[in-house]
Amino acid sequence: MNLLRQYLPILDWGRRYDRTALSNDMIAAVIVTIMLIPQSLAYALLAGLPPEAGIYASIAPIVLYAIFGTSRALAVGPVAVVSLLTASAIGQVAETGTAGYAVAALTLAFMSGTFLVLLGVLRLGFLANFLSHPVIAGFITASGILIATSQLKHLLGVTAQGHTLPEMLDSIFGQLGQINWITLCLGLSATAFLFWVRGNFKPLLKRLGTGPLLTDLIAKAGPVVAVVVTTLVVWGFDLAGQGVRIVGDVPRSLPPLTLPGFSGDLLGALLVPAILISVIGFVESVSVAQTLAAKKRQRIDPNQELIGLGAANLGAAFTGGFPVTGGFSRSVVNYDAGAETPAAGIFTAAGLAIAAVALTPLVFYLPNATLAATIIVAVLSLVDLSILNKTWRYSRADFVAVAVTILLTLGLGVEVGVAAGVTISVLLHLYKTSRPHVAEVGLVPGTQHFRNIHRHKVQTVPSMVTLRIDESLYFVNARFMEDLIQTRVTEGSDVRDVVLMFSAVNEVDYSALESLEAINARLTDMGVGLHLSEVKGPVMDRLRRSHLMDVLNGEVFLSQFDAWNSLAGQGDAGAKSK
Amino acid sequence: MNLLRQYLPILDWGRRYDRTALSNDMIAAVIVTIMLIPQSLAYALLAGLPPEAGIYASIAPIVLYAIFGTSRALAVGPVAVVSLLTASAIGQVAETGTAGYAVAALTLAFMSGTFLVLLGVLRLGFLANFLSHPVIAGFITASGILIATSQLKHLLGVTAQGHTLPEMLDSIFGQLGQINWITLCLGLSATAFLFWVRGNFKPLLKRLGTGPLLTDLIAKAGPVVAVVVTTLVVWGFDLAGQGVRIVGDVPRSLPPLTLPGFSGDLLGALLVPAILISVIGFVESVSVAQTLAAKKRQRIDPNQELIGLGAANLGAAFTGGFPVTGGFSRSVVNYDAGAETPAAGIFTAAGLAIAAVALTPLVFYLPNATLAATIIVAVLSLVDLSILNKTWRYSRADFVAVAVTILLTLGLGVEVGVAAGVTISVLLHLYKTSRPHVAEVGLVPGTQHFRNIHRHKVQTVPSMVTLRIDESLYFVNARFMEDLIQTRVTEGSDVRDVVLMFSAVNEVDYSALESLEAINARLTDMGVGLHLSEVKGPVMDRLRRSHLMDVLNGEVFLSQFDAWNSLAGQGDAGAKSK
Repeated sequence: MNLLRQYLPILDWGRRYDRTALSNDMIAAVIVTIMLIPQSLAYALLAGLPPEAGIYASIAPIVLYAIFGTSRALAVGPVAVVSLLTASAIGQVAETGTAGYAVAALTLAFMSGTFLVLLGVLRLGFLANFLSHPVIAGFITASGILIATSQLKHLLGVTAQGHTLPEMLDSIFGQLGQINWITLCLGLSATAFLFWVRGNFKPLLKRLGTGPLLTDLIAKAGPVVAVVVTTLVVWGFDLAGQGVRIVGDVPRSLPPLTLPGFSGDLLGALLVPAILISVIGFVESVSVAQTLAAKKRQRIDPNQELIGLGAANLGAAFTGGFPVTGGFSRSVVNYDAGAETPAAGIFTAAGLAIAAVALTPLVFYLPNATLAATIIVAVLSLVDLSILNKTWRYSRADFVAVAVTILLTLGLGVEVGVAAGVTISVLLHLYKTSRPHVAEVGLVPGTQHFRNIHRHKVQTVPSMVTLRIDESLYFVNARFMEDLIQTRVTEGSDVRDVVLMFSAVNEVDYSALESLEAINARLTDMGVGLHLSEVKGPVMDRLRRSHLMDVLNGEVFLSQFDAWNSLAGQGDAGAKSK
Repeated sequence: MNLLRQYLPILDWGRRYDRTALSNDMIAAVIVTIMLIPQSLAYALLAGLPPEAGIYASIAPIVLYAIFGTSRALAVGPVAVVSLLTASAIGQVAETGTAGYAVAALTLAFMSGTFLVLLGVLRLGFLANFLSHPVIAGFITASGILIATSQLKHLLGVTAQGHTLPEMLDSIFGQLGQINWITLCLGLSATAFLFWVRGNFKPLLKRLGTGPLLTDLIAKAGPVVAVVVTTLVVWGFDLAGQGVRIVGDVPRSLPPLTLPGFSGDLLGALLVPAILISVIGFVESVSVAQTLAAKKRQRIDPNQELIGLGAANLGAAFTGGFPVTGGFSRSVVNYDAGAETPAAGIFTAAGLAIAAVALTPLVFYLPNATLAATIIVAVLSLVDLSILNKTWRYSRADFVAVAVTILLTLGLGVEVGVAAGVTISVLLHLYKTSRPHVAEVGLVPGTQHFRNIHRHKVQTVPSMVTLRIDESLYFVNARFMEDLIQTRVTEGSDVRDVVLMFSAVNEVDYSALESLEAINARLTDMGVGLHLSEVKGPVMDRLRRSHLMDVLNGEVFLSQFDAWNSLAGQGDAGAKSK
């Protein structure tokens, strides 16, 4: 029963569900549903799929996440970055608009869902941590630029292709002669309106005395207004006849039952993108969920989140959708509108189902340019180049990771960008730890404290060198340590004792152990003693099982002060007796 | 001038060269030369090249290393593992015995030399540290098994192929019917003799009262004796006529001038093997050089070593050789025989040049089986499966790295084995640091020390949680930290202050910084204070440049005891006032 409740969080909150929660959830659901209709259509367009796919991708996934997920407020569905990744992945295996393209989208959702559930069951959620924050920030920013650029064709009324910035720009510049000016006017008006709502409308409403919650909700309704107005304009002036591309016929139907493709070729081609989509989607979703949970002192379980998102994607795969994840804007709206439990998601799904059956004829005359405008305005808020500046000031290594991720994502595409970002973060980390900070320390007079001899006035003894190693010792820095000690000892010809102060050494792996043994052997050859001090419990436990403790020519001191008392005294005595 | 002396260590020791050093170096050179003749022939055979290539590969490289290298005793030339890697790499681009095969060997030496010099000039020697000790140990052991197996065909007098253990064994079993029994007898006798010299002859000599140095030298001369005796036997009984394969005609010549190939295809195909050979060779060589240097309290410069080994390989590339590096056994003989300076290497080269011109007819009747026997006996001393046992006891992660490296090297070949070993070491390291040891600590009564609440009897205050984080904070564990703190704080509903004790935190990267900001924001939402204590200088310097210090809702305490005095006091007061 406990296991069941662990995997089915709905059993937990469902038992305590009451009338207040119900009414709060219902209100939130109505608001989110209205906001989701244009967003779903837009992200389907971004993914290169027919508009109804966006609606379908928001129904079953929301319900499944409500059953398996742990966040109370997260709203699952198509989101911008995942839709871009979907378009990029599927574009390599099928032509937009073909049946193969839709099947590939289902397959991608299926693989992504399977992968996420697998990670969750195996409790491997920590793997997502290999994406460092700067790499994610760089990737999201570059993706925002790519997405906005990819939508320019809809504003211009041309057909352009490409999955990298140079390809897209090249393709668009080649067709500047075919611009449909009516489309461009509509699109630019919609874009301008949406930017205005976002930037200037809120302060206006506030000045009018609207409450902050209502202000937010009205501002978020901007896309709905743009959709209604431009649809009416296109219908009223028959602009579709003038070459303005419109959404057109959307089938009135509940989500259909669909089957992903299982051919080996297709699965093989989509494997890497599926992993990428899963990880990026998971990272995005978890950070949103964690932020919202913290506001109510709740917590989410990252491994169960994997299962929830996996189930949502499997749902999308069998009901005509495409890869989904927890979205930032929709979750915030859901939270702000007062959603108390995942039931709000279930009600939203019901609302969207009604819309899918009843309201789709209303969007027949909706111009694609309006959807593109909503996407552009939404994703440009993701673009945040200040991360370059912030990381530059804080840490050059992080800056390099961001810069490489942004440049390669823009220049070579999303997959190369992320892969390069992850690789470079790991390499930079290894590089940093490969040359650890090592301080030669001496006794601060009158205390039992030891400090860097180059920063503080401290006592030292020529016959004794104490090195405080500010890093765990492992294979990447083991040899560095050997060189360092060898250099220090050959420099000071009267050195008789070397003490390694281990207060910040959290691990000694087998390579470092062998290096310590080598150092010990070489120092023994030179007639120099090797001692350790302030070794942590877990590190000492392990060292006790090693050969080093049998051959160590010196002692292990509990504290550095003990080492000083024992060795510096001898040193003085030795010096005096000369 | 200083720069010149940095890149040309010969200018340093050359100025102080005197008559004593000269005579010591000459004696060492004679001994090493005699030992190197059979070894060079054998390793050429292992690499699949004509015997003279082994001699040539020992002449120019030794001289160039003497000029550019920093070790006084290192002897450079063909070594077993590098010869195996060479055979494996070239076997993929050319057939043994063809002109293309020899050119590929030259090209490999050229690329490896260029790569090493480049690493040295760019001071990138630390990259070699990505090979952890267990991975190297596993790789050397697996290589030893592969090499010994590859020589079985010479003992059996059959022709077998393959670069992995299953391939080789399969190929040999398929030809058991074609065994040449005379070859087998010769080979087994030589092998048995060499094992006997290695194992039983030394104690015998010692009992006879021979000095330890002479004992060692006589034992090392075993291969020379085996070569002489079996050559005489083959010549005397005309065994070559009975199908015993012999070395045959070796041209009497100084090393020829040769040119490596520069076709794009060849360079592309050999790129990865060249990098691998360089790195493995460098790691091997440096550890030998460092061990020998330490015995005389000298030191070597790893980056200059790269240049020395690079020059040696470039020399091999243009004088009919193949990839070389500093060998363990030849260096130890050189050292034991009393070599004082790299001049010993130059004299050895002269000795080998004389041998190449004058002595090659003497090895006409030398059976390949004898050379195979010397290889087998030499490499089986490299095979040390105890590394599995040692790492198992010390650390499971290191054990996994060794086991994977050994299995994949044997089963899929040397390149896959090393690549997998490096990858898995890095992943295991990241995994370990992704879930750092975090101790909740309390005050040891009557002291200023803080210890783990689960291991010691300590004072705590319910309103204050102190977590000592035993790991640097970076992207791999940043989110783990967020989860951990969130969990701890939501568990204890009366927590009002969280103190993070940073005594073992050696770095906070940008990801961890953002996680700390997120933790701070969430704790602020919950009305909980976030404090830091015992932050190290370099970490604090960086944090001061960050946004975190502006928004941190609590304080940064110099010592944990300060934090306790400030916060636990409040906590008590708060508790009392209730």
